[in-house]
Amino acid sequence: MFNKILIANRGEIAVRIIRACREMGIETVAVYSTTDKEALHVQMADEAVCIGPPSPKDSYLNMRNIISATVLSGAQAIHPGFGFLSENSKFAEMCKECNITFIGPDYEVIEKMGNKSKAREMMIEAGVPVIPGTKSPILSDEEALLNARNIGYPVMIKASAGGGGRGIRIVREEEELIKSLQTARAEAKVAFGDDTMYMEKYLENPRHVEIQILGDNYGNLIYLGERDCSIQRRNQKILEEAPCPVMTEELRKAMGEAAIKGAKYVGYKNAGTIEFLLDKNNQFYFMEMNTRIQVEHPITELVTGVDLIKEQIKIASGEKLSIIQEEVQMNGHSIECRVNAEDPSRDFMPSPGKVKILFMPGGPGVRVDTHLYDGYVIPPNYDSMMAKLIVHGKDREEAINKMRRALTEFLIEGVKTNIDYQFTIINDLDFIKGNYHTGFINRNPK
Amino acid sequence: MFNKILIANRGEIAVRIIRACREMGIETVAVYSTTDKEALHVQMADEAVCIGPPSPKDSYLNMRNIISATVLSGAQAIHPGFGFLSENSKFAEMCKECNITFIGPDYEVIEKMGNKSKAREMMIEAGVPVIPGTKSPILSDEEALLNARNIGYPVMIKASAGGGGRGIRIVREEEELIKSLQTARAEAKVAFGDDTMYMEKYLENPRHVEIQILGDNYGNLIYLGERDCSIQRRNQKILEEAPCPVMTEELRKAMGEAAIKGAKYVGYKNAGTIEFLLDKNNQFYFMEMNTRIQVEHPITELVTGVDLIKEQIKIASGEKLSIIQEEVQMNGHSIECRVNAEDPSRDFMPSPGKVKILFMPGGPGVRVDTHLYDGYVIPPNYDSMMAKLIVHGKDREEAINKMRRALTEFLIEGVKTNIDYQFTIINDLDFIKGNYHTGFINRNPK
Repeated sequence: MFNKILIANRGEIAVRIIRACREMGIETVAVYSTTDKEALHVQMADEAVCIGPPSPKDSYLNMRNIISATVLSGAQAIHPGFGFLSENSKFAEMCKECNITFIGPDYEVIEKMGNKSKAREMMIEAGVPVIPGTKSPILSDEEALLNARNIGYPVMIKASAGGGGRGIRIVREEEELIKSLQTARAEAKVAFGDDTMYMEKYLENPRHVEIQILGDNYGNLIYLGERDCSIQRRNQKILEEAPCPVMTEELRKAMGEAAIKGAKYVGYKNAGTIEFLLDKNNQFYFMEMNTRIQVEHPITELVTGVDLIKEQIKIASGEKLSIIQEEVQMNGHSIECRVNAEDPSRDFMPSPGKVKILFMPGGPGVRVDTHLYDGYVIPPNYDSMMAKLIVHGKDREEAINKMRRALTEFLIEGVKTNIDYQFTIINDLDFIKGNYHTGFINRNPK
Repeated sequence: MFNKILIANRGEIAVRIIRACREMGIETVAVYSTTDKEALHVQMADEAVCIGPPSPKDSYLNMRNIISATVLSGAQAIHPGFGFLSENSKFAEMCKECNITFIGPDYEVIEKMGNKSKAREMMIEAGVPVIPGTKSPILSDEEALLNARNIGYPVMIKASAGGGGRGIRIVREEEELIKSLQTARAEAKVAFGDDTMYMEKYLENPRHVEIQILGDNYGNLIYLGERDCSIQRRNQKILEEAPCPVMTEELRKAMGEAAIKGAKYVGYKNAGTIEFLLDKNNQFYFMEMNTRIQVEHPITELVTGVDLIKEQIKIASGEKLSIIQEEVQMNGHSIECRVNAEDPSRDFMPSPGKVKILFMPGGPGVRVDTHLYDGYVIPPNYDSMMAKLIVHGKDREEAINKMRRALTEFLIEGVKTNIDYQFTIINDLDFIKGNYHTGFINRNPK
């Protein structure tokens, strides 16, 4: 096992990883930008190294500085968390070259799965159901028109290098196609420096259901049930739950086994997530794979009892998986609300600033993963997520009641928050019935 | 189900009960003394009624005021929590007369079990093993001498109305007996207004192991495993864990079934705890029954997944038990540390005052039940317990590592705390080995 791990991240996930390390008796090294010197992860880690100015590209994305900090501190491994360098195959490769363990899959796998059209091809080869669509990048307008006719409208145009909802267009009629393709290309060029596009069938009102997997270095792979992440605003998840309200034992087994099939095919190691779209007929289609820990991993932890961060570290250190598929059980129901520093009344504009009053919910079945403390100043440079409020109840009804209660208790003053917004979602009748899909927020903008 | 419940208590247990009610959709009425008007339970409840001045006897023990508040607020039931009126049979009887549901067993049962020598007699009748000793109060010095000779030294003299370690003497030799009896009687007279004493065999280095039971109004009774509460200072529990480190399946079954036998014999309803002493030969002896929820109930909740406060409320409202004995499972391991406002360097003197900086541990497997908030002023009038830090791990080792991590994170400034003291216990080699008994703290005063 490692003696020391460097955490190449900030915020609540850095705190989460430090906690896991501390419980495992592993020393931790935090990295921070100059604006984060008072951040909780810096205060909690055993050591902390400043890696640059506030701008992410100069600090949390600064590969050389992070590698240097690792070497100088004597850490044997890097946990990348999510975002930042977590899905950067070049960084993972650089770690390998420097004899540092990157806590995640091999860099070759990150690279393959990070390219959305390549990932899709591989999943087709592996026999995982994918959404009907182009198997290779769209090279011309003519090709686009032909493909769309073959797939059948509505179709979705997606940037190959995309993420965060950018570079995506839904096209319902042929006359819109070329113009949409052009604007999507332009958006992708600006956002990712790459305007490669592909096309797929657009599913009406699907659910976003993802399968958590774990694989060790010896070819053992398990799935830990699913998460329903359909509650999204502009393709950003805001509330997740496990299990999915419409899941059946058979469907879970089918989706889980498909996920394992895909992961096995690419030689996947460590924690990963296969995201599927699930339609009304219980048909599911591979969407993409996230080759890292997810924001919403705690809901899987609460229903399965498996500490995913500890498993990641154990796997990376060469341990075998501690459980087999037959031992994975889902107990009760878990919901996570992302609590963001943003102003729902001003189109969810980020609301950085000083946290003046802070009271966090507690008691049975409530977990808060956060980097907040009373007096903390939320900088404007990073993600607006302040906390993850996670509950666990014996069934979905209890989990909803618990979330309602916990949201009522949560008190943050000094910055605007989406707590009331989450409260509205949790009290929505369709949500309570489990009757929702990825269009839930668009349909109910209020 | 009730629409509204009055909580006849304060502090973390009042907050705990409010949380359960809120999750069940039940309105809550808090009561408070004048010094508690800013207390968290008052802020969290739907309504709050002032019931008197700071002195407990004039407020939280003021039966008439509490009954009046209940009637005036329209609450149908009273949850007494622990301490204060929770084991006062007169209060439970008064509730009945006023047509208010007392959330607990029948007043006759509280009365019987509250009298320690009567409780002992009943347990003997029920066939529950008890510590060899006098079956009736000691009436004279001659009787004391004779009984002690029959039982065999060392013996323990205990006040019939006792609690909190007062009115207790251990006598190792005959020449000490009469003097000890006299001082214990005097102490009991002052503390409880009743100097009735009884005598029993003193067990060397036993463990304090208690069985949680639940019974509904229809004769169904279950046990929910045990708690080891041997870590005590002056007979006050300070750290508890479930399961007991030396427990076996067979012993748990034997103790559980003995507890049920005793509870059935007295017609027990609602949540209760049978406390046993467990000696080195795995012989167990009835010590006393607590006819209320216990401080340490969360560790049972975390290993069994049963919300004991909700069960109490459901039972009191006339629902049947929601689980049967065969469904009770113990998963993982849980530890609770009581975090008190006291100064270990000054003989644990209470340390009331204003909480100036507060950071509470969080993350996976950590639960904090508390009434603290930043800026709260802890009054000098009540118990010094500020918070219960409770962890749950997949096994005892993980639970210990988690508690160590959580204690390290816990930050309270403005008042003295026993957090470092708890940290010392959790790092003690004998504790880590599970090798301890009720004399643990006395043996290791540091």
